[in-house]
Amino acid sequence: MEFMDNCYIGIDIGGMSIKGVVISPEGNILAENSVVTGVEGGKEQVCANIVWLVNELRKAVDDYKPIGIGIGCPGIIDSKNGVVVFAANLNFNNVPLAHMVGEQVGLPVRMTNDANAAALGEATFGAGKIYRNSVLVTLGTGVGGGIIIDDCLFEGFKSAGAEIGHMIIVKDGLPCTCGNRGCFEAYSSASAIIKKTAEEMKAHPESAMWKTYTPETVNGKTAFEYWDSDQTAADVLEWYLDHLAVGLVNLANIFRPQVIMIGGGISKEGDRLVNPLQKRVDAMLFAGSDYAPVKVVKATLGNQAGAFGAAALVM
Amino acid sequence: MEFMDNCYIGIDIGGMSIKGVVISPEGNILAENSVVTGVEGGKEQVCANIVWLVNELRKAVDDYKPIGIGIGCPGIIDSKNGVVVFAANLNFNNVPLAHMVGEQVGLPVRMTNDANAAALGEATFGAGKIYRNSVLVTLGTGVGGGIIIDDCLFEGFKSAGAEIGHMIIVKDGLPCTCGNRGCFEAYSSASAIIKKTAEEMKAHPESAMWKTYTPETVNGKTAFEYWDSDQTAADVLEWYLDHLAVGLVNLANIFRPQVIMIGGGISKEGDRLVNPLQKRVDAMLFAGSDYAPVKVVKATLGNQAGAFGAAALVM
Repeated sequence: MEFMDNCYIGIDIGGMSIKGVVISPEGNILAENSVVTGVEGGKEQVCANIVWLVNELRKAVDDYKPIGIGIGCPGIIDSKNGVVVFAANLNFNNVPLAHMVGEQVGLPVRMTNDANAAALGEATFGAGKIYRNSVLVTLGTGVGGGIIIDDCLFEGFKSAGAEIGHMIIVKDGLPCTCGNRGCFEAYSSASAIIKKTAEEMKAHPESAMWKTYTPETVNGKTAFEYWDSDQTAADVLEWYLDHLAVGLVNLANIFRPQVIMIGGGISKEGDRLVNPLQKRVDAMLFAGSDYAPVKVVKATLGNQAGAFGAAALVM
Repeated sequence: MEFMDNCYIGIDIGGMSIKGVVISPEGNILAENSVVTGVEGGKEQVCANIVWLVNELRKAVDDYKPIGIGIGCPGIIDSKNGVVVFAANLNFNNVPLAHMVGEQVGLPVRMTNDANAAALGEATFGAGKIYRNSVLVTLGTGVGGGIIIDDCLFEGFKSAGAEIGHMIIVKDGLPCTCGNRGCFEAYSSASAIIKKTAEEMKAHPESAMWKTYTPETVNGKTAFEYWDSDQTAADVLEWYLDHLAVGLVNLANIFRPQVIMIGGGISKEGDRLVNPLQKRVDAMLFAGSDYAPVKVVKATLGNQAGAFGAAALVM
């Protein structure tokens, strides 16, 4: 039997589809594929789809030796025991998914929350790879993220921590989907900027944004598009950046990472987003930004971060 | 030479005095002593005072073998290199204190920030000793604290993290000594409740608190004392507990410790403080409090927590 290089399989479960990658120890993609999630078929169907995906990936890299499978899964994950404690999107309650998959594929399986997986992916292969301490903040429908301390994923007791989107930054502020008020997520998600843009358009019939949008058609890019040419758009962005920066400064003062990586749809704005955030964070950082600066950067792996990070779980 | 039990020396540097303890591996106090800090004599004098204190402590336990010295010091501490980067109270800038002390006493010296030392003390010997994941929140002149993850002190990159008092909970809120607005500390310190009590007394000449206090003589206990008999006092406490609970919930959602320990002068109120906080935290905890509950308890070591935790640095 000849010598085979190792490879690592990463699985990222979403509500609609399951993505899978096989990566080399250097972080190169050796294969990728996807399958429908199949939530309507229940946990057995979701598990069968994962197993099918894993087998397809293994066939594609049969000159490599798979060491293990990492799974990033939405919801509350007991990563120590590989159990999906609760996942609303998947309709899962206490599903021992790591065990179910492991039994059928004959490889070790590790699991974490999808946001944590994305953070580990960016920290290992993406924007954080040169740092040992990083935080990923994902600006999407909600605000997710994860925390890497000394190159290790931090999950909190029973993996229930790192819920950074539900840090309250405005006591008694805007309502959040979690039931509390004033959460970081209620101000800094893509949904939050869309809602604010629509509201400000309604309040400002003179806004140039009306040229190409209505409050019903605005998206997360609208205000950025009109930033330089419209006062209402500029006001929306000032509001958005000011609140987002408060959340980032809190994370910086609490974790003092070397880098905060911004992911999710809004991060596509790149420097236009990141530069004004860096300026605000530097100005507000406790005891200044000279001794232990915190860089704000765009995440680089896009929607592959989760699958990469899942693979990193078994590296 | 007969067999000697090990012991550990903990030093807690304050602006006025330096406390020292010698503890056994089980956490029993074998000796304790203190000395003036001597800030006016500069770093050499402070160092000489620490060395004197260490030598006195060693004499008191000469049938034990000292393994090392831990130092808790106010300010920004580079714990990896044992350097006081900046400490306003001590007038220290880049003072290699661990090396200076170690050279003269011939024992290994480790150092951390005083708030971190207190957290490690409570986690190792006090209210957190049965838990592996805990957070200490100290309600004093400011709000300090520290974080223990899997029995290890978490300090952030270059030991600059864990500044929980400067987490913003009310964007654009009350001014904080750090220069920002709306920090946890500006609402939850002993100073904050004193200020609020005085303000509310002025606004409410009918308050029963006027019987024994003026806005100039109120202290951190005044509102607690009149809680059951005066509406103004009750309103002050509702305001105080509501804001304090927001900070605790944020720490719970971010770190998901098993226990949050409340220390500092205000914590002397005991159950009257802790019980309403537990209720609020349970009600606001992300995804509920069944899966991974977070207990709120009173810290138990009082002002010895720092010296105990300093000793724990070298255990």
